[in-house]
Amino acid sequence: MPDLCQERIASRSKYDVLQAHYCQREAGHLGRHEEFPYLQDLALTYPAVAGKIIRDATMTTGAAWKSAEAGPNRILRWVMLQPDAVLPAYGLNMAALQPQVVAKLREKAASYEDCMRVAKKLTWLIYQMPDAPEVTAATQRYLEAQFGPLTTSSTLCLVCRAPLSFSLFAQARRGKAEVETGHSNPRVHNAVNVGFAHRECNIAQGSKTLREFYDWIAQILARVQPP
Amino acid sequence: MPDLCQERIASRSKYDVLQAHYCQREAGHLGRHEEFPYLQDLALTYPAVAGKIIRDATMTTGAAWKSAEAGPNRILRWVMLQPDAVLPAYGLNMAALQPQVVAKLREKAASYEDCMRVAKKLTWLIYQMPDAPEVTAATQRYLEAQFGPLTTSSTLCLVCRAPLSFSLFAQARRGKAEVETGHSNPRVHNAVNVGFAHRECNIAQGSKTLREFYDWIAQILARVQPP
Repeated sequence: MPDLCQERIASRSKYDVLQAHYCQREAGHLGRHEEFPYLQDLALTYPAVAGKIIRDATMTTGAAWKSAEAGPNRILRWVMLQPDAVLPAYGLNMAALQPQVVAKLREKAASYEDCMRVAKKLTWLIYQMPDAPEVTAATQRYLEAQFGPLTTSSTLCLVCRAPLSFSLFAQARRGKAEVETGHSNPRVHNAVNVGFAHRECNIAQGSKTLREFYDWIAQILARVQPP
Repeated sequence: MPDLCQERIASRSKYDVLQAHYCQREAGHLGRHEEFPYLQDLALTYPAVAGKIIRDATMTTGAAWKSAEAGPNRILRWVMLQPDAVLPAYGLNMAALQPQVVAKLREKAASYEDCMRVAKKLTWLIYQMPDAPEVTAATQRYLEAQFGPLTTSSTLCLVCRAPLSFSLFAQARRGKAEVETGHSNPRVHNAVNVGFAHRECNIAQGSKTLREFYDWIAQILARVQPP
């Protein structure tokens, strides 16, 4: 993996006290520092997809727990590494949430470094979809240096292993795209563990690891179709 | 199947203009008319479970579409057999809903007769769970006359075919029981087509028929574990 610039990027966000942001461009780059340099092409042509990658990589999901007492709908994953006592200052009152919801939120915690690598991995996967937009030479070089050669049509659904198409990002239904960010183990958010999955596959997997999911459906089939 | 009383039961509900309610006791019964006579035992010991059977049998689900413009969260399934123009009088404005939501609601429509039979079938399934409360002779006779002998431990999850335990109804999580009413074909609400399913199984099945679901998971396993 090539060295990255890693200069601190100033911001006025209240979360910066907890975690600084760092330039992800290659060491010795010209021009300004950028946290998501490899997403700049995609942000021009498909801003919603670029935004989704950043959001899924760095934020928790959790509409289920949004409420006036509890706090915002999504929160930065690295903020969830902080102890309960620190969180009210960031608009999140864990004491107002049910224990299961707290546990689910804590499962989504991840370090800033893991989140940065997840965003790169997801972008690398995007550009291997057969109908993805063309990648610029600079972005291709950047991503390949991190994860290896871009191979067209090699991005499969993490769960069902069928090839994924970029067009699925556009097929919104009730505001939900037909493809989601998935995890081989839903309790671990890092680059090895993430990928894209069909929405229906991600929902079917639920809170199981992929191994647990495959064992589970094999058991179902064994009961439904006895040998 | 024995003859039922079928006397009309008076009510002051505004929905009664659309659909009358009828006594479901056996023809020639003594005492008052009842719409759910076979649930009276359960309603004494497990009122939440009896309530769930009536609700699942007769009402649509649909928290996703609840809103000020759209109308209530749940609505009687037979009301959904009415044309759009009739529904505003019953608090439901289909024009305010997205087409996919309208389609989903219409799929939940069912006749009063089908709903009555679904409630009986679900009760019959309950009493075949190994840890179900004891059934009175009168209720047993009533249910067996409709669906055949009660056989202990014969109620399986509709989806995964593992035995279901009555205790699952009590294990609420975020207000959701671990067992739900499922459908072999999610677009048909009748007694042949309904059963209980684990919550995770019901979610995994999604909008697929059981046949589609089994085909789907078999294809996944074939990709994951090539022969």
